[in-house]
Amino acid sequence: MATNFADRLFGAVEEKNSRVCVGLDPRVSQLPPPILEQYPNAAEAVVAFCRDICAAVAEHAAVVKLQSAYFETLGRSAFSTLWAVVAEAHRAGLPAIVDAKRGDIGPTAEAYAQAFFGGEIAADALTVNPYLGSDGIMPFVDAAEEKGAGVFVLVKTSNPSSGDLQDLRLEGGYHRVYQHVGEEVRLMGAHLRGECGYSAVGAVVGATYPEQLAELRRDLPGVPFLVPGYGAQGAGPEEVVAAFDKDGWGAVVNASRSIIFAYQGGDGEPEQFAQAAGEAAREMKDAINGAIGG
Amino acid sequence: MATNFADRLFGAVEEKNSRVCVGLDPRVSQLPPPILEQYPNAAEAVVAFCRDICAAVAEHAAVVKLQSAYFETLGRSAFSTLWAVVAEAHRAGLPAIVDAKRGDIGPTAEAYAQAFFGGEIAADALTVNPYLGSDGIMPFVDAAEEKGAGVFVLVKTSNPSSGDLQDLRLEGGYHRVYQHVGEEVRLMGAHLRGECGYSAVGAVVGATYPEQLAELRRDLPGVPFLVPGYGAQGAGPEEVVAAFDKDGWGAVVNASRSIIFAYQGGDGEPEQFAQAAGEAAREMKDAINGAIGG
Repeated sequence: MATNFADRLFGAVEEKNSRVCVGLDPRVSQLPPPILEQYPNAAEAVVAFCRDICAAVAEHAAVVKLQSAYFETLGRSAFSTLWAVVAEAHRAGLPAIVDAKRGDIGPTAEAYAQAFFGGEIAADALTVNPYLGSDGIMPFVDAAEEKGAGVFVLVKTSNPSSGDLQDLRLEGGYHRVYQHVGEEVRLMGAHLRGECGYSAVGAVVGATYPEQLAELRRDLPGVPFLVPGYGAQGAGPEEVVAAFDKDGWGAVVNASRSIIFAYQGGDGEPEQFAQAAGEAAREMKDAINGAIGG
Repeated sequence: MATNFADRLFGAVEEKNSRVCVGLDPRVSQLPPPILEQYPNAAEAVVAFCRDICAAVAEHAAVVKLQSAYFETLGRSAFSTLWAVVAEAHRAGLPAIVDAKRGDIGPTAEAYAQAFFGGEIAADALTVNPYLGSDGIMPFVDAAEEKGAGVFVLVKTSNPSSGDLQDLRLEGGYHRVYQHVGEEVRLMGAHLRGECGYSAVGAVVGATYPEQLAELRRDLPGVPFLVPGYGAQGAGPEEVVAAFDKDGWGAVVNASRSIIFAYQGGDGEPEQFAQAAGEAAREMKDAINGAIGG
């Protein structure tokens, strides 16, 4: 029986004393010039860049998250590159969440679950979109159970217009769409709690909405949160405190651009991009630990 | 200025007198044995199978739809295979909808739009998930406008549990989530109507819910529908009549398994898989035209 994903995730959090998830969003146009010079092929440049980032942040990050979109811009090389980077993350000892936000009707969701969890190299967790309802989500949950993988269902996303649909108030007046989805996620993952008390089925909840983050933390015990929105999207350590339970568990916080492209800020040198990323990850780790008093 | 997608789509419908979309869902385990014997490499088998299907259905189908999930199960070859099949569809004179149901925060949605509409070989249209709200959809609409491509936003999907989220009734009592999303889709695409009267921004509405299909057709004039659920999912010609306007325009109906794997039914021979698919597409075309009196 594979180890429960939540136990693996929070095992990494404990080992590294870090609640940081580093987002691998390798926009080719933003890659450091020395990488682009050394690897004129964009797909090879992405793999080399992500490999060096993983090595540099491994000490300070619990996990990495690959944003599938930036791989899919590579055309025919999209998935050869994505899976090569998952392998590099594993080589650096980092679990890899693939942020692909998949969701489809039952048999097709099964195919997606096979695609992301069933191969020789597999994702440790996948983000999933709930618009299709339970038969679009359960194939991922079932596959996660079988493989010891994790699922993070979008509940309240970090973007400015996330409220367009997610904040709609439902008949009866009390619940909003995201609250309804959150409760469904809690129920769908209730049978997959690990020894850490958290389920392998989690929720994506943006740090850019700290009130909703606090409310969902209270309402969804046992549901681990993947919290985007830190750094370039505007949230800081004070905003993410609410993601954690009273013991400082239950969430990992993602930052992408502010870590992997840290070399572009201040007096960073392009040659030192990996060191800059490692330093930014360390600072984020310390800032979050400081804010939660950990 | 690129031709409006709706004009291209309904131009193909008119030219072929067909409202059929053939769904390319190439599950490797279901490919005809002769193909698997000739092409031991799964990715090559998928390309050869889809090439032969496209050639066989080109006379009877207005468009094809590639289900990204079945390509993504091919691991590192996922996107080299997907784009090779889009090229094969184009070679057969068929526009290609990529059914990838993407959706993400603004900058990432831009990357997805670039991935699907910006390459040397590009999708003619893409399916998009609305859970993220307008900033997760507008980058696709903007790219579609620029490239003459189309977008089909999920409104009411064909699967059994589509109501879990989509049918939730909103405060005020009248509207449900899918109705709200449908209206947003209409507004987002209002500036992209072609000469045919339909927009390049459409909606996915399942044939398995004929009442909602009729209601949405009435409420969303000018919004083209991509209608899944025909054939293996249970809907027939009578169920899809409601998708069309009074002149028989405004929708294409997708069938996947019942067409591409038609050789598995009745007395079909695996060697004749392409002919069986062509015949099934012709029958579906005639059945829908008969039902709408066209």
